[in-house]
Amino acid sequence: MLSEWIEGGFFVRQSSLFLPTLREVPSEAEIASHQLMARAGFIRQLVSGVYSYLPLGHRVLRKVKQITREEMDAAGGQEISMPAIQPSELWRETGRWEAYGPELMRLRDRHDREFVLGPTHEEVVTSLARDGIRSYKRLPMNLYQIQTKYRDEVRPRFGVIRAREFIMKDAYSFDLDQEGLDRSYEAMYNAYQRIFTRCGLDFRAVEADAGAIGGKGSHEFMALSEIGEDTIAYCESCNYAANIEKAEVVYRGQAPATEEVAKAEKIHTPAIRTIDQLAEFLDVPATQTIKSLLFKADDQFVLTLVRGDHELNDIKLKNMLDANVVELASEQDVEETLGVPTGFVGPQVSQGRNVKVVADVAVQHIVNGIVGANEIDYHFKNVTPGKDFEVEQYADLRDIEEGDPCPQCGGTIHFARGIEVGHVFKLGTTYSEQMKATFLDEQGKAKPMIMGCYGIGISRTVAAAVEQNHDEHGIIWPVAIAPFHVHIIAVNVKNADQEQVAESLYEQCLAAGFETLLDDRSERAGVKFNDADLIGIPLRITVGGKAKDGIVECKLRKSGEVVEIAQDEVVSYIKETLPSL
Amino acid sequence: MLSEWIEGGFFVRQSSLFLPTLREVPSEAEIASHQLMARAGFIRQLVSGVYSYLPLGHRVLRKVKQITREEMDAAGGQEISMPAIQPSELWRETGRWEAYGPELMRLRDRHDREFVLGPTHEEVVTSLARDGIRSYKRLPMNLYQIQTKYRDEVRPRFGVIRAREFIMKDAYSFDLDQEGLDRSYEAMYNAYQRIFTRCGLDFRAVEADAGAIGGKGSHEFMALSEIGEDTIAYCESCNYAANIEKAEVVYRGQAPATEEVAKAEKIHTPAIRTIDQLAEFLDVPATQTIKSLLFKADDQFVLTLVRGDHELNDIKLKNMLDANVVELASEQDVEETLGVPTGFVGPQVSQGRNVKVVADVAVQHIVNGIVGANEIDYHFKNVTPGKDFEVEQYADLRDIEEGDPCPQCGGTIHFARGIEVGHVFKLGTTYSEQMKATFLDEQGKAKPMIMGCYGIGISRTVAAAVEQNHDEHGIIWPVAIAPFHVHIIAVNVKNADQEQVAESLYEQCLAAGFETLLDDRSERAGVKFNDADLIGIPLRITVGGKAKDGIVECKLRKSGEVVEIAQDEVVSYIKETLPSL
Repeated sequence: MLSEWIEGGFFVRQSSLFLPTLREVPSEAEIASHQLMARAGFIRQLVSGVYSYLPLGHRVLRKVKQITREEMDAAGGQEISMPAIQPSELWRETGRWEAYGPELMRLRDRHDREFVLGPTHEEVVTSLARDGIRSYKRLPMNLYQIQTKYRDEVRPRFGVIRAREFIMKDAYSFDLDQEGLDRSYEAMYNAYQRIFTRCGLDFRAVEADAGAIGGKGSHEFMALSEIGEDTIAYCESCNYAANIEKAEVVYRGQAPATEEVAKAEKIHTPAIRTIDQLAEFLDVPATQTIKSLLFKADDQFVLTLVRGDHELNDIKLKNMLDANVVELASEQDVEETLGVPTGFVGPQVSQGRNVKVVADVAVQHIVNGIVGANEIDYHFKNVTPGKDFEVEQYADLRDIEEGDPCPQCGGTIHFARGIEVGHVFKLGTTYSEQMKATFLDEQGKAKPMIMGCYGIGISRTVAAAVEQNHDEHGIIWPVAIAPFHVHIIAVNVKNADQEQVAESLYEQCLAAGFETLLDDRSERAGVKFNDADLIGIPLRITVGGKAKDGIVECKLRKSGEVVEIAQDEVVSYIKETLPSL
Repeated sequence: MLSEWIEGGFFVRQSSLFLPTLREVPSEAEIASHQLMARAGFIRQLVSGVYSYLPLGHRVLRKVKQITREEMDAAGGQEISMPAIQPSELWRETGRWEAYGPELMRLRDRHDREFVLGPTHEEVVTSLARDGIRSYKRLPMNLYQIQTKYRDEVRPRFGVIRAREFIMKDAYSFDLDQEGLDRSYEAMYNAYQRIFTRCGLDFRAVEADAGAIGGKGSHEFMALSEIGEDTIAYCESCNYAANIEKAEVVYRGQAPATEEVAKAEKIHTPAIRTIDQLAEFLDVPATQTIKSLLFKADDQFVLTLVRGDHELNDIKLKNMLDANVVELASEQDVEETLGVPTGFVGPQVSQGRNVKVVADVAVQHIVNGIVGANEIDYHFKNVTPGKDFEVEQYADLRDIEEGDPCPQCGGTIHFARGIEVGHVFKLGTTYSEQMKATFLDEQGKAKPMIMGCYGIGISRTVAAAVEQNHDEHGIIWPVAIAPFHVHIIAVNVKNADQEQVAESLYEQCLAAGFETLLDDRSERAGVKFNDADLIGIPLRITVGGKAKDGIVECKLRKSGEVVEIAQDEVVSYIKETLPSL
């Protein structure tokens, strides 16, 4: 493990290190990692979502990059670097110039030509492969880069977790056939496991939405964290884990409803606006109600039914409809399409409205349910699908819930929250067909290359590591990505014994190949200890009053464990201790 | 030296390396380095002035970065990374938002806020120092980054030498006082000497223009090359070297003119448009003529006189006038200001024209010269400064010429051409005063930090190295920045002996720590040798017909020297040979 460490630099005297710690938490910092990285002088915000990395932050970034590079190389990746500015023509070839929306940063050069500041590089890398790979003999190929990317987030937040300028490793694989893609994908999946393990993250690879194609073609790597913006559905009985965007809802051996089917009846429901109000007003469980939601899927209106206590999953809806864009219809669209305001919509759509009606499979089992009446302040009760309204298609259209059965083993689903630090994705031939990136096979026939893409948020990984490794005093760096391994603190630099022992230890540590920071500042001991806890270097050597007897104190940042040892034994103590941190 | 090498990657079998060599030279490639880097598969143009670095090119870039990083760290630099996108507000603080002109790439975000794509980072780094450095105790400080930069060149050319997206190392020093700045500057100057020496460049540090402040406050590091866009004036007798923008013209012991002063006379000079035509028409040497050029210096018009055979140096003019912008007046401005078309202007400007007249010192020595008459198709002859026209100020305003005396030792000036690969510059307090970046001195008094800035064109250095190190067959990489050290070529991979010896040598080279590329392709020998010459790896091991006897051929790319050695001796041969390449 020692061999993986980056060599120490020369700016290791804290008195001359640019390390502007803060007492106050910046007002925009909502979460621990953001607060601590700013307070400990690792990052500085330049403008919303745009950060500088100061010397300690830059060292951590370099370590994550180096770990990533080593594992990518070991997995057969070839490092390149592609430009951040990309001509609009290339993005027009794939239709993303129009489709990408306001997150795509655009600019014009002095000749008024349009450019993109790349959020991703499928277009550029596909154009490189199109020009550079002609024959099956050159495949498979995996090209990657570690590069600055741009996304004009509507709401940048959480420091470098959701930034507008950020650092990513992005890789792209090119294969002859589907089996080749499967192998390339697996190599990346395994490399990602190693990368995040080496970075010291508590993470989980989860199934993710892979679009309408389906299949196990996409995994996200989630650093587990309460502040994560993604919800993971996982099973405690087996290894199943998926983003709730993706997690399939299954029904096993569900007993058929035994209730007798009653006659539908229109009821006056004044001032009822929500499912909860409706259930309370009618004194029925929410499971008896049906929510009717109008969506616009590309140019088609679709009325979507889910049980009142369920949440519609618009990604599942999009995949079922094989649509490019699915969004909730505007109030105006609802009025024009169904002739009734949002909130009173029901499944009994008049003929001629030209609206497709689809429903989640849970709706199929409802007997004597409650639905909107397509009339202000009225609902129907005792409606039953098939009897009172028709559904064109049933499908799994809702979010999985805690307590639902695991789709893999039938066990019980639990939820956790995660920060997406990596994503592997089987692209197939989407880009290679659009951009005509073909190779000649053994028979001399042109075929589109089969692609995969694989991303790691490098700067986000740093923040996720802090989110998982901190206490009320500061950061607790995993040793593999710590800015330094050893922090030597001379309690009183004006004391000749302490100063001499500290300097001597510092020389010994450097000679032994430990990256060492020496706090040689003429500050009070309390300030130094607080700063040390805040910065979070794994191993602290305090040179204090017993220095005159050749005794120093070693403290582990993580466990708080303290031992006093003779100064001659410090190097061997560190050698033994560090690899276990 | 071996310890400086970056560890070999894993993509070293040429059969799977993304190395798309070209037979045709891309039409836009005018110079050898651009042609070779494109043909040898190191770079690919995405759009004018914007390039991708393919695996071999990326490896060379990484080596130049690593050499730069090591020397910057050794010189006390602290590596950080600052954002490429910078808010316009920051550039307004220094006035550069307005002043920078069309080379500055600008963009707007989704909220219509204006940003710059940074060509340089004085504003950002000064804002970091302003917020992070309060006390004299934290100075001096040197912050640097290796980062992608943007400049919207009006005419991108010469491949990555003049690109719109390029990689720079930029460093910024902050000091207490002028002596501190001098020390910081010297440390950077010396680091640059080491960096370019290690990269194998033939270069020269030359004095460069430092603006109106003057002094020895700026040096450029020039890679000597015929295709260089800068002209260097150097002395063969001493160590003097300067950009001609800057090189001072001195006159030593010039004999006074002995000619008798004659009376001025207006002469008809029909269809005379150039100095050469004028000199020929009047049968006088061009040294007797005076060129009168109208400039606009900020809002003031200045008529500038230089001897007909001399070239006006507009940077010297700008510095003398202490102007922000100096440009040749438009034809319309000339007509309006002097009442005569460009080409007939002379120094006898009518009173009331409100034009300042300045002249190069060489003009002062002209007796009975020729000038324009401020009248179409007429000149004056026998004019003498002081008698026939007044000059408000004489100064050194012309370009130095080959043969002029060296300003340092009086020797003879020669010219060379150079590619600017580095620049060190004493900024002083320009930015710290504008942005209020102050520190408290020992007396508690706020003072502006004294700054220096220091740039290296990382991607340009790669191209300059190729420009200096190539022959008609391809690139000849200096070993310190070569993409690989050793190139093993199995002439016929279907021959079991050759295949086995090549594989065995490959393993041995990797084990010995050499970065090794194995050409295991099933291509004809001629193709392989041509590609190897093109790529330019310093040491080639050819495994051919004598492999069955354990004999291989070692060839040095640079000298062409070939030796046959036993396969057991290859590793020790490489160990001995490489450091001398």
